[in-house]
This record gives sequence, C-alpha cells and structure tokens, in this order.
Amino acid sequence: MRMYDLIEKKKVGTELSDDEIKWMVDGYVKGDIPDYQMSAFLMAVYFNSMTDAELSQLTLAMAHSGDMVDLSKIDGIKADKHSTGGVGDKTTLITAPIVAACGVKIAKMSGRGLGHTGGTIDKLESIPGFQTAIPNADFFDIVNQVGISVIGQSGNLAPADKKLYALRDVTATVDSIPLIAASIMSKKLAAGSDCILLDVKTGSGAFMKSEEDSVKLAEKMVAIGKNAGRKIAALITNMDIPLGNGIGNSLEVIEAIEVLKGNGPADLAEVSFELAANMLYLAGKGTLKDCREEVSKVVRDGSALSKLIDMVKAQGGDVSVIEDTSRFKTAEFVFDMIAPVSGYINHMNAEQIGIASVVLGAGRETKESVIDYSAGIILHKKTNDFVTAGDSIATLYSSSSDVFDSATKLVLEAYKIEKEKKATKDKLVIARVTEEGVEWL
Amino acid sequence: MRMYDLIEKKKVGTELSDDEIKWMVDGYVKGDIPDYQMSAFLMAVYFNSMTDAELSQLTLAMAHSGDMVDLSKIDGIKADKHSTGGVGDKTTLITAPIVAACGVKIAKMSGRGLGHTGGTIDKLESIPGFQTAIPNADFFDIVNQVGISVIGQSGNLAPADKKLYALRDVTATVDSIPLIAASIMSKKLAAGSDCILLDVKTGSGAFMKSEEDSVKLAEKMVAIGKNAGRKIAALITNMDIPLGNGIGNSLEVIEAIEVLKGNGPADLAEVSFELAANMLYLAGKGTLKDCREEVSKVVRDGSALSKLIDMVKAQGGDVSVIEDTSRFKTAEFVFDMIAPVSGYINHMNAEQIGIASVVLGAGRETKESVIDYSAGIILHKKTNDFVTAGDSIATLYSSSSDVFDSATKLVLEAYKIEKEKKATKDKLVIARVTEEGVEWL
Repeated sequence: MRMYDLIEKKKVGTELSDDEIKWMVDGYVKGDIPDYQMSAFLMAVYFNSMTDAELSQLTLAMAHSGDMVDLSKIDGIKADKHSTGGVGDKTTLITAPIVAACGVKIAKMSGRGLGHTGGTIDKLESIPGFQTAIPNADFFDIVNQVGISVIGQSGNLAPADKKLYALRDVTATVDSIPLIAASIMSKKLAAGSDCILLDVKTGSGAFMKSEEDSVKLAEKMVAIGKNAGRKIAALITNMDIPLGNGIGNSLEVIEAIEVLKGNGPADLAEVSFELAANMLYLAGKGTLKDCREEVSKVVRDGSALSKLIDMVKAQGGDVSVIEDTSRFKTAEFVFDMIAPVSGYINHMNAEQIGIASVVLGAGRETKESVIDYSAGIILHKKTNDFVTAGDSIATLYSSSSDVFDSATKLVLEAYKIEKEKKATKDKLVIARVTEEGVEWL
Repeated sequence: MRMYDLIEKKKVGTELSDDEIKWMVDGYVKGDIPDYQMSAFLMAVYFNSMTDAELSQLTLAMAHSGDMVDLSKIDGIKADKHSTGGVGDKTTLITAPIVAACGVKIAKMSGRGLGHTGGTIDKLESIPGFQTAIPNADFFDIVNQVGISVIGQSGNLAPADKKLYALRDVTATVDSIPLIAASIMSKKLAAGSDCILLDVKTGSGAFMKSEEDSVKLAEKMVAIGKNAGRKIAALITNMDIPLGNGIGNSLEVIEAIEVLKGNGPADLAEVSFELAANMLYLAGKGTLKDCREEVSKVVRDGSALSKLIDMVKAQGGDVSVIEDTSRFKTAEFVFDMIAPVSGYINHMNAEQIGIASVVLGAGRETKESVIDYSAGIILHKKTNDFVTAGDSIATLYSSSSDVFDSATKLVLEAYKIEKEKKATKDKLVIARVTEEGVEWL
C-alpha cells in the first residue's frame, strides 16, 4: 500500500477499505507516513467527507492505537457522557452523581479546558486535595465501591488522535465534522463504557454554531458508536447562552452542588436532569419517563449529592467544602459590572463571556497556563431578562487586579441590550439523535 | 502573517492577497513554512482552484524565487515555445530553426524527458558533441550571432517550482490545472522571452486527456502571461495519435530534419508550421496568413535547415550527421512488428506507445535512468490506416535484446484494429487560445 494512492482515492471520492484505513493510522502513529501526506489527506477529507464505514474504521483504528480501557473488572453497566464543550457547562458534576445514585456505574475519564470552554478535571481540582491522576486499579476499586469516579485521561488514550489533532490544529483541518466525530469517539471507545450519551452543544458559545452542523456531528458519532457495538444517543442542547450563572472552576462546583440540593438555576437543572435521564435510558433503566422520575427522586432524597460527597472523599478531596460551599477559597478581587443602559437583553455572545473568564484566570490560553480556581464570573442577568441602568448584571472574580479592564470590556460587548424585546429561541434541549434518526423536541 | 490563516482562506474560498502569496512562496523556499502546511494548502487549491489574480502572483513569486534570465543583451524580439508534452513531439526541433530563419530570436531553455514523453534536450544530445550546458554569456553570444540557441534549464530556474513539484508528486496534488499552469509559466517567465507560444497537447498521449481541461489550462497560462506583460497565446493540438512516425531521440532528430527539408510526415509538418507561424505572429511579423507564407518560404529555400545546422555547429555538435542522417549511430537490435489481423486502425493509445519507447531505452523511468539515444520506434501505420495481416506496422529499435518482448506487447495492445472503419477526429490543431478568448478551429 502507498499513502499516495489513499490520498488520491479520497481526493476523487472513492471509498477506502478497512485495511487501507487501518494501515494508514498505524503507519502514521509509527512515523512511517509523513505529516505532509497526512495533512493532504485530512484536507481532502474536509472537502469530500467520509462514509460511515470509513469513519467507523478510522475511529476504531485511532482508539486501538493506544490503551483500550477494560472496564470488565467493574460490575454492572457503565455509562459515560461527553459534552462537545460550552461556557458554564458543569453538567458532568451533576449528571454523574445522579446516574450513579440510580445504580448505573460511572467510570469516567475527563479532559481539561482549553480556550473559551472549561474542563471537568480542572473544576474537580478546585476542590482542595481532589486527586484526578489515579492508577487504573484504584480507579476500578473506587467505582466498584462508590459507584462513581471521574479521573483525568490516561497518557496513552488514543495517541493517534493526539498526533492527528496536533496536525489538524496547524493545517486548518480542525473544523471537519467527520474528523471531529472520529476524534471524540476514538477516546470514548477507548475509555470502555457500555453506554455513551453525547451532549452536542449548539450556538454562540459552542464549537458548532448551527443546529444543522450539530445534528450532522451527532449523527456521525452515533453511527460510529453503533458500529462499535455501544449503546449511544445524543442530545443537541442550547449553548447560545451560558448554562447556569457561574463560569469558573470553584464557582461552577458550587452551582452544581446547589442543583444537586434541588436549588440552582432552572436552565442548568433542566439540561442536567434530561442528560441524566437519557444516560439511565441507555443503561436500560426503563422508559424515558421512568428515568426522569428516577432522576427527580435521587435529587429530592439527597442521594445524588451523597454520591458526589462519596466520590470526593474516595479521591482524597476535602468534603467540608462540598458540605459548606462558603469554605471554598474566594477570589481576592471582585468587580461588580453595572448595566450601562436600561432594556432587554436580546442576545449574549457566550463565547466572548467564556473568553472573559479565561482573561480573569479561570481557563487556559495555552496548554502551559496555570489556572486560578476561584476566578470567574457570576451572571446575574442573561438573555431575555430586563435590566435597569445601574443594576448589577455580572460579578467578576480574579486573583489579579489588572485583568478587570479587558475582562469587563469583553463582558459588556457580549451583551446586546435593546429597547424592544425580541423573540428568542429559549428551548434548552433542541433535539435527540439516536440510531433511529433525529427527533426534534 | 501565519500560514494557518492562508490555508483557512483558501479552504473557505476567500481570495488571497498578493502580499500573502509572495510571503507564502518565499517562506516555503526558505524552509520557514513546513511541508505539512503547504501540502494542505495545495490540496485546498485542488478543490477550490485559484483566481487569475492569485495565480499570476503565485507564478511571479515562483519565477522570482530563483534567477530571472535577462535577455536584454540579445538584440531584437525573443520568442519561446512550450509544449505540455507528448509522444513523438519533436516540434521544437522544427519550429525553432524556422522562427530563427524568419529573424525572430530563439533563446530557449528546454527540459529533459520523464515518463512517457520525451524532452528536447535529450533529443539534441543524440547529436554527437552537442553541448546543452552552456554559460549564459556564451548562450547570449550564440543567439546574437546565429539567431538561435537551445540549452538545458539552469539549476536555479524557479527553485520554488522544483520544491513545490516534489511535494505535489507525493501528495496527489499534481493534477490541479492552476498548479500545472503556475509550474509551467514560472519557468517560462524566468526564462525571459518576450513572446511565449504554448502548445497544449490533448488526447491519449497527453497529460491532459480532454479538450475541456486542455482549454482550461491554456486559458490559465495565457492569463498569467498577459498579467506578466508578455505576448502569449496557446494552440490546443491533437495528441491522440503520436506526432509523426519516429519516437526516440535520434529517430526524432532525423524526422525533424526531413520536415525541414520539405519532406517528412504531413501531420508533423502541419502542426510544426502552424506553431512557427503563431510564434512569428506573436513577434509582430504580420498577419497569421503572412506568417504562414513566411514559414513556407524558409523551409522551401533551405534557410530553416541552415539555421539548425548553424546552431548545432555553434553548440559543438557534429554537423555531418545533420547533413547525412544515415551517419547517426543505429541501434544494435531491430524488431519488425507485424499486424496480427487485417482491418482499420480505429484507435491508438499514444501514452502506451510512449511507455514502450521508454522500455526500449529511449526515455527515463526515473531521473537516474541513462538514455539509449538510438532506441525507439518507427510507426508505419497509425490511426485511420488500413492494415493487412502480415504488414509491418512498426519497427522497434534498442541496444538491448531482452526488452523486445514487453515492448512489442505494449505496442500491440496500443493498437485497436477493427473490421469496420470508424469516424475519428483527425483535426490536428483544435483550438487557439488568446487573451481575447478561445477560437475553435
């Protein structure tokens, strides 16, 4: 086989065989296929896409390029969730304990934040003492005993994806829906869970700005998961507005705890509960209606919050901050942002709010950035709200006083305040994609 | 500037600025831009093409990456011709002396053959003693004194093209019409002539198999030449059938001499004379009709042949072989190929005939191959001829006896002999492309 012929095939639109794709991924990881041939191939994929058969094989080959986590030592059904990333998206901190409280195991590997979206591992590390680098044997023990553990991704999870992503990142081939699908799913397949629920974010704060692209990505990922023999579905959820009010690591943990206590912002609760119900449904816990009721029950009776506490304890975290969130370290500098005019908030640029939180110290501009766990933003007003000039619309937190000037400018610019109220779409869960097709909600 | 942004622009179809293209070519030649970014860009060009403005700038930047030959030391108008390559294409050996005999200077840099098409430099080197590596000062002197000189391309002519071509060759991005146009024209612009006539071959023996693609390529090249301030036009000529009867280096020189003597195959004479007339027209030597008459005159009165002899003498070649072509070294082994059946030749695969000549030793399979100057093929029958079983349809020549088995098989397969005569297009000069548009002939 020659890589030249595979590039040519993709360029003219001929389907590649399983053997060809496997040979290509293996050869690329080994260094036999040079970057300049792979980048030409990736650009041809950008234009000519991939068939479901090609994509399934690509994803499997990428997953098998490193460790395939074997969760068979954990009893029962294992469920996983993946979010394509958004601003203020702390749903894992809520759904995972809920699902575990309902008796479905959560053995989850999560990522760190980069750019305008946060990562679950960073959020958990804002809990003093919480360990995210845990050997597999201990990870399995915790899941068997507590029912839930969330750790960082192992170094050797889908190394083909790491190498391909680094190349895509410098050759303008990141925004290819099949390549995004393969990247996400290679890690999910390698991470070993039986059931995978995908949360595909759509809107101004998401990587996928349009519903159409979000559905296409969801369909590709569902097809890959199905072909790999997993139970899989996707929800398309609204990321036109940040989810909940808190953005920033400990601020988000605090808000997640509020939701698990039955309080917290309604939008965050609604999305988190629906994600949890769909995970339980994939795990065979009855109809969706049954699963929704089960979710309500474990929140109401406190068992979901207990699961979070148990996990924090098992992973070495300081449980006292969960039991009393006022014990979280607070930011040294606080800045209240005042509405400059009166009117209706007709739009928010969620991505820009996310960038402001990075400027405040809550996220990473580069992989080397150090995170300020108490930094971030609490939004007091969001899209569809009315504000009076002089009202506080957001509070900004940071350990550094000299970032407020640029952060407040970003936040102010992100708000569109107008005299007339405009109709805006306020549906939070927009569609559900399963192997049967797309169900618009 | 970042190469990433330029790839992204080309990918989404935004026009690149002159500065961006210049920066990119310079950076690539210097090694600042890595191959993996350039190959992604080239693949994006394959899909999204380039505007005439982008292409002109790309070609100029490629031309200026090395030596720009300054022909101002040569008096008068300088005309150049470029063929996209074909089988049995020895037109340069005929047109160049004709044009020079009409008073237009020929200061031409030619290439070597690779693959199934031959190169003028190899053909000239089949003349004993003929020198093709000549310092520029001597080259200019010869052109000033004799009116014509044909030498090999200097090592530093459009190095950006060399580097880009090597990358395209391994990333399946050779067959992009704008990139082919830029590659050819960068060398033509660097070579310095005022007038450039392009001979774009079309058909089974050409790189461009369809008339449509050939016209597209011609249009792109004419636009580039015009934007660079050169007089330029293109003829689309038939390469469905090998041109003339001889294929192979000294065999082609002999045939060219026959045409310059007023003999030789009619198809070769027609195409060569029309090319010469168009070069004279570009050089301002009157109407096309005037130019055609001028061509006839210099062939009839022997002055075109004299020009060839003068050039061979000036470049150190043995003139006696031109004056008496029977003095050319002949191949050790000769094989007469007999028609296996009677019928009409309704088609010839010209590319396969070219490959057979390479197998016999007349061309290069790789850049390192050594050429057998007396090897090749003389075709006795071509498309539209009737053959009787037992007739000789071609004679094969080689210095090696063990290549005849595979060469004869290739030639036999290339002929399609059928009972019924089928209408075939036999137009030799199909279209003329100028800055005014396409004129179908």
